[in-house]
Order: sequence, then C-alpha cells, then structure tokens
Amino acid sequence: MPKTTLRVELLAHTPEPLSLIYAAFRQCYHSGFVADMWPRLLSGEIAREKQAQFVASVMESGHASPVEHVSFTFAAEGVSRALTHQLVRHRIASYSQQSQRYVDGSSFDYVLPPAIARNPQALARFEQCMAGIGDAYRDIKALLEADGRAGAKSNEDARFVLPQAAETRIVLTMNCRSLLNFFEHRCCMRAQWEIRAMADAMLDLCRGVLPELFAVAGAKCERLGYCPEGERFTCGRYPLRQS
Amino acid sequence: MPKTTLRVELLAHTPEPLSLIYAAFRQCYHSGFVADMWPRLLSGEIAREKQAQFVASVMESGHASPVEHVSFTFAAEGVSRALTHQLVRHRIASYSQQSQRYVDGSSFDYVLPPAIARNPQALARFEQCMAGIGDAYRDIKALLEADGRAGAKSNEDARFVLPQAAETRIVLTMNCRSLLNFFEHRCCMRAQWEIRAMADAMLDLCRGVLPELFAVAGAKCERLGYCPEGERFTCGRYPLRQS
Amino acid sequence: MPKTTLRVELLAHTPEPLSLIYAAFRQCYHSGFVADMWPRLLSGEIAREKQAQFVASVMESGHASPVEHVSFTFAAEGVSRALTHQLVRHRIASYSQQSQRYVDGSSFDYVLPPAIARNPQALARFEQCMAGIGDAYRDIKALLEADGRAGAKSNEDARFVLPQAAETRIVLTMNCRSLLNFFEHRCCMRAQWEIRAMADAMLDLCRGVLPELFAVAGAKCERLGYCPEGERFTCGRYPLRQS
Amino acid sequence: MPKTTLRVELLAHTPEPLSLIYAAFRQCYHSGFVADMWPRLLSGEIAREKQAQFVASVMESGHASPVEHVSFTFAAEGVSRALTHQLVRHRIASYSQQSQRYVDGSSFDYVLPPAIARNPQALARFEQCMAGIGDAYRDIKALLEADGRAGAKSNEDARFVLPQAAETRIVLTMNCRSLLNFFEHRCCMRAQWEIRAMADAMLDLCRGVLPELFAVAGAKCERLGYCPEGERFTCGRYPLRQS
Repeated sequence: MPKTTLRVELLAHTPEPLSLIYAAFRQCYHSGFVADMWPRLLSGEIAREKQAQFVASVMESGHASPVEHVSFTFAAEGVSRALTHQLVRHRIASYSQQSQRYVDGSSFDYVLPPAIARNPQALARFEQCMAGIGDAYRDIKALLEADGRAGAKSNEDARFVLPQAAETRIVLTMNCRSLLNFFEHRCCMRAQWEIRAMADAMLDLCRGVLPELFAVAGAKCERLGYCPEGERFTCGRYPLRQS
Repeated sequence: MPKTTLRVELLAHTPEPLSLIYAAFRQCYHSGFVADMWPRLLSGEIAREKQAQFVASVMESGHASPVEHVSFTFAAEGVSRALTHQLVRHRIASYSQQSQRYVDGSSFDYVLPPAIARNPQALARFEQCMAGIGDAYRDIKALLEADGRAGAKSNEDARFVLPQAAETRIVLTMNCRSLLNFFEHRCCMRAQWEIRAMADAMLDLCRGVLPELFAVAGAKCERLGYCPEGERFTCGRYPLRQS
Repeated sequence: MPKTTLRVELLAHTPEPLSLIYAAFRQCYHSGFVADMWPRLLSGEIAREKQAQFVASVMESGHASPVEHVSFTFAAEGVSRALTHQLVRHRIASYSQQSQRYVDGSSFDYVLPPAIARNPQALARFEQCMAGIGDAYRDIKALLEADGRAGAKSNEDARFVLPQAAETRIVLTMNCRSLLNFFEHRCCMRAQWEIRAMADAMLDLCRGVLPELFAVAGAKCERLGYCPEGERFTCGRYPLRQS
Repeated sequence: MPKTTLRVELLAHTPEPLSLIYAAFRQCYHSGFVADMWPRLLSGEIAREKQAQFVASVMESGHASPVEHVSFTFAAEGVSRALTHQLVRHRIASYSQQSQRYVDGSSFDYVLPPAIARNPQALARFEQCMAGIGDAYRDIKALLEADGRAGAKSNEDARFVLPQAAETRIVLTMNCRSLLNFFEHRCCMRAQWEIRAMADAMLDLCRGVLPELFAVAGAKCERLGYCPEGERFTCGRYPLRQS
C-alpha cells in the first residue's frame, strides 16, 4: 500500500484536429460544401499556416463552438478520489471510472499531499492513518464475507472506510471547448494542487497534438492579461483588473 | 463524531408543475398560443383531471421532453462522499456541495452502512477506524497550521485522510426528465443501498407534489413490467424479459 | 395572413429565487445544513439585502454555478422560424415548439423585418411573396390530400414552401446561468435584430423577478466595460479592449 | 436554383473506436490501469473478437456510458432548413451550420419532397413557388442594399422569404451514445422522411466503421423487438407491446 504518482496518458484524439476545426468554422461562412474542401485541407494544398491563423483568430474572437468537434480521451492513474469528485463536476465530458464496488480495495494505494510529505511528523501520522484504514478495510470485508456478503457486496460497504486519498483510475473524454474551460479553472493557482497537476499534464498533451489551439490555453489570466479572481483570492501572478 | 442519518428536504419546485407540462406539450400541437390558455389552466377551467390524463398519455408514449420544463431543488444531509461521487455523475443537474476545503472536518460525522451496523464486530472495527481518522485529521491539520498553512490550506490537505463515509451536504436541482432517469437507475435494487435510499426519499417528495407524473416512476422494471438487468444482475422482483 | 408581433410571457419561475441562490451558495461554505436556514431566509430574518449583496459578490467573482438552481419558463409568439432555429442552438435549455407537421400552416402569420417595413417597395415585394407562398401551400396541401395524404402527412410536405418568416410559438425554460449566457450573446448589437428583441424582452421579465441578479446582465460589454467583439464587429457603444 | 440531393460524408471519427470503448469499460472493473493494456488492444494481442463480444454485452445491458468516448463528425449538404431545425434539437452534439446571414441566398438550391415530386401538378406549383421566392429574395436584397444595407445586413433580412426547403450545409459531431439515441428516434418510420434519410445515411457510415456497435442500432423497435409508439402511431413493422 505505497503512495502513488500521477500518470496521465493520451489514449486517443480526433484525427486531423486543426483541419477539422478549420473546416467546421469555414462551413459557417462558405457558400460551398466543406466535404469538397476536406481533401485539400488534409493534403496541405490549403496551407496549415493558413488554417492555424484562422483558428487563432477564432480563439481571439471568443466564438468557440467549432472547436467542439475535436475531442481528446485521457486515462489517468495515481489520482485520488478527492480529485475525481472534483473532476466529474465538469459535466460536458464523459467518464469511466474504476469502481470501489467491483474492484477490491484491500491493497489500495494512496496520493500523498506534498505539504504533508514535507513535514516528517505529518507524514508519519498520515502513513500510520493509511495503514490503519487498510487494516480496517480488510477486517470489515472479512467480517461481512463471513456474514455471507461476498465480493462486490462486501467491497461496497467496506469502502466506506477508504480515505479521500485512495487511488482511483479514470478514462475521460472532453471536447476542446470543454477542455479550454477545464484549463481556465483548473490550471489557475486557486485550484487544488492535485487537480492542477492533472490539468497541467493534460494541457501539455493537448499542446503536443494541437499547439495552434492550446498554446494560449490555461488559467483565465493567461488569456485575459489580468487576474479576475479578486483581491482576496489572486495569486499575484497577474495584476488585478482595474475597475 | 457520531453517525448521521439521511435527511432530504424539498427546498423548491417550479410552481403549477402539472399545468406547465400540459401547456408545454399542448403548444406543440395547438394552433394558438398557450400563454392565452394559461389562466384557464391555473383556474381549473380546463380541469386538472384532463391535464393529468394528458400528462399520463405523454408518459406512456415515451416522448418526455415537455416534462423538462419543471425542476425540483432538494437539500440533502447525512449522505456520504461515496454517495455524492455517484450522484454528481448525473450530468443534467445542478449541484452546490459543502466544500472539504472551506469547511473544517475536525468533527466530521459519518454514514454507517446497515450491514456493518448489524455485525457487532464490524461495527466496533468501523467506529474505531472513524475515531482514528478523526485523530489523524486533527493532528495533521495542527501540524500543517504550525507550518504556516492556515484554514483552507490545511483543511485541503488534511482532508485526504477523511473516509468515503464522511458526511457531506448538497443542494441539487434536476428537471423532471432527469429525475425520471435518476429514479430508473437509482431506485433499482442493483443501485448501492445509500443512493437508493436517497432516490426513494426524493421520489416520495416528488410524488407529493406531482403524483400525476411520479406515480409510476421508479426503477425501470416498474414501467417496463420486466427486469432489463439480465440474469446475472436481476433482483428477481420482476421476471426477465423473454427473448 | 397578417404580420405578427413579438409577445413574450413569463409562465413560471422557481419561487424565492434570491433565497434559493443564496442557500445553494452558502451550502458550499457553511458547516451546517441550509435546509435549517431556509425558513429564516424566507421570513426575512436573514435580510434580503444581505442575500442580495452575497449574490452580487457571487456574480462579480464569476463563479456562477449556484444560479443554475433557478429556472425561468417563457412562452413566445410572433417569432419567426429564423429566430427559433437560432434559439434552439442554445443547448442548456428545454424547448416545446409548435409543430409545422401537426399544425396546419394554411393561414400562417409572418414576422416582418423592420428594414423591409421601412422601404415601401421592399414591403410590397415582401407581402406579395408571403401571399404567393400562402397560395402555394394551400394548393400543394390540397393536391397531396387528393393523393390520399391527409392532415399531418400533407402539412409535413407542404411546409417546405413556408418562409423563414413564418410565425411559430415556443415554450422555453432556461436556468439563470444559461440565461446570463444567452443575454451575453443575444442582447449584443451584433445579434440578429429579432432574437435581440426577444432577448431584451426576456431580460426585462427576469429583471422584474430577480433584479439582484439580472440588473447587470446583458451583452458582454455591460459586464466587462469593454467590447470583446474586435474592430471589425464592434458596434462602438463601448471601447475595444486595449491589448 | 435547382433541386438538390442529400449527401452525407464522414469527415472524422475517434480512431480505434472498438478498443477505446473496450478500454473505457474495462477500466470500471479492472484493478490495473487500462493505459497499460492499451498497446495490447491495438496490436490485437487481446483479440478484436473478444473486444467485440464485450461491447455487444455492454449494449445488451443498456449501460451505455463507455460508448460516449467515441465521436463521429459528419458533413451534410442537400438538406433543408426544415431538417436542420429538427436536427439541432438534439442537444448532446456540436453543430457548425452555413449562415443565411453571411452566405448570399440569391441562387439557393432546395430540397424537393418525394410526395410532391410524384404529383406533376404539385411539382409544378412547388417549382413555381421556389422561383417566385428567388425573385423576391433578389429584389428585396437589391432594395435593401440601395438603402445602404450591404452584404450580411441585407442577407439577414431578405432571408425571411427563403423557404423551409432552402438547402443548408452543416458539420455535426455526436458521440456514440447520442448517435444511438438519434437513430432510435430518427430511423423510426414515424420520423419525417428527410431526417430519416439523413439518419439512415449516418447509420450506414457508422456501421462501416464500428459494426460491432451499430449493427443493431436503428429505430427503437429493432432493439426492443416490439413497437413502443402505440396503436395510433405504429407503422406496423413490429407488433405493439402487449400490456
């Protein structure tokens, strides 16, 4: 039952994302049919630079619906249930998460907050607590199984002792518009450290695939040039907006 | 840090829900304007029985979009984080949940699974574990505060030890279409016992306000007359569908 | 087959909207249960001014999810199919619209664009065109009925001649977060005149019920203090943002 | 201004859709991390037959959320505004549609309903009406331009005469769960003929890519084995459900 480490993998994304966003946006203003233009977008006959400039101007104008046509699917492990409970609050997305009912938690791994890791006394206290929870889980599971509640039935109730720190794994898909919103909220220094680390990792992966869109993505301040969080919550990286 | 009990309150709902559903549905097929009909719906000049029959026939046909115009807002306490993590997976809904960052968890209450309550040894083990977690939370919080991380900063990390059983409170709003879907999944005997209890409580409250719609709501089998869960998962209350 | 006039009626809204938003937001940060606070919110023991200030600060911070708990339901007539095709692109909403299949279009009314009304020649041309379409609809419907396609079957095909101007009626429900987004886009001078008129009418009705939230709603510029639409599209009412 | 013909092209889809659905579903029940399994899914080390059987059993059970991870993007032309107004009512989807404001409608094409095409008198009446509308559009546009309303400004108002039959073009993206729902409603014989033709074309394209999922997709009756539409609306292809 050791501590675990964040790992985010990009499983899949819509192919030719730049051209697809370009095509979708062009269809709104073009008298022809983008399906006829599509081969010339893929071949580069319509230059990628032109496509990229167009997408950049879309981003600038704030009219973002065409970017919805492109989705990214990630798999994450080494994340806590505390993180995923926040994550799944983002409703324009799809999730498939490891079940604490169907997967036995007897040897659960856990996420260790850095501030606790840095304080030896807190770390000892945390590790002791995790070990105690593991013991309780296994004991309760065995007692429930002795009552005739096997497998999922005993996991389902024994799981009530598992900590927020318990590791979970999740597959998630978001379209680019939802991703941009996710990054605005979760790459912000106000976001909880764990989900911020995950958001940063996702943003890196997105930038690798579609730099034309994600280069300027991130916390709201990156795009606005000022911090909209107010005096009480600002991290100070950008100036507050002058009223 | 005692155990807690489920409590679900109906804070608000769209007024005159039967008439509103009736009006919305009528607008689809009516050559006039339902706003002109509206006063006669409220006064009962168009009889409630007629409105109810109409809504019943809508339900029967499976064309449910007009019921979306009516929403219910509930407040729940005595529910675990295990429950709310499942709950917020229902995406066509709005949630405002008690924060483990801004609210101190030093004296958290917890939800006790009935199967554990019924087994004295398991109960003792569970209560001991909850007490141990409470001690760890307070110790770690004090140690982090001594490091200069006050308030939300220490709660945010100390919370990693809190159990899935930890009580939370949540305000939630769903429209009737989303509620019918929620009840289909969560009133089913396959659903986890805790969220089933909450769904049953919500359904009771909905029936009190709008019996015309919710009388036949509940698990899918209630509407279908057979169990669609398959041989492996059926509870046996309704026969399986014959293929 | 005369021209028609916009009419927007508020059929229903979540009761006690200010208190409900306040309660939902408080639940996030409060250690108790808002259901226990609820009677004191309704009675005014917790002053409405305090509730309003709180909601205003929520608006300011941009963390808008608690306003989702409150919904408004409108009925609109005197709107064109051109308008509703734009309207229903707002996906976080519920719609029940008059069917051109089940409702006979033989004596359809139409929406007259003001710029056409102001030009006598264009007006005459427009009215002549509407009359011609009405004749064609009735003739085609009669011919299809003579082929044995009665009622909905003939409406469904005859409707292909009906103009974008043809009047429709619609019942729509949006929660406050979706409404604020709708007003940002559709109260903007860049929006098409007809949907802007409808948005303005809806905003007036919202302000009458919940001025604490909707006083500062409207086009994005009202909230931002600058125009985000760029040099090419700005109406000039607010200065462009300096880069 | 001739009549036009339906054309639906598949622009893009999530790559390796079968394996992605399999991986997402497996993550829910698997103690490991599907990212580690992913290469073996792509290489066929875990056989495609096994993946297909698993997806089939998912479909059978009705627990469809893992299929959301896969999206399809189509481009359609030769479709009417009557069709797209229905189409965009499907809210779990993304749309980019040709604008009647930014694209000049002076030489619009139109969709001709088959029942009208089969009746020579109705056909003549329809074609005459389309020609008349074209004349009116061009005249009104010229008159508005003479008033100083150029380009988009004149299109925006002249479009009010354009018929529901007027051709439009649209790029649309839906995930597989939304597609299955779309096919249930729109491949049904009760659906309007034009959107049924489009749905059938989309389903064919989906079957070509992911037969394991879409083989049994289509109208509800195909899956249920009975018609749920009731005595009044059934097409007779499948028996009604016995009550």
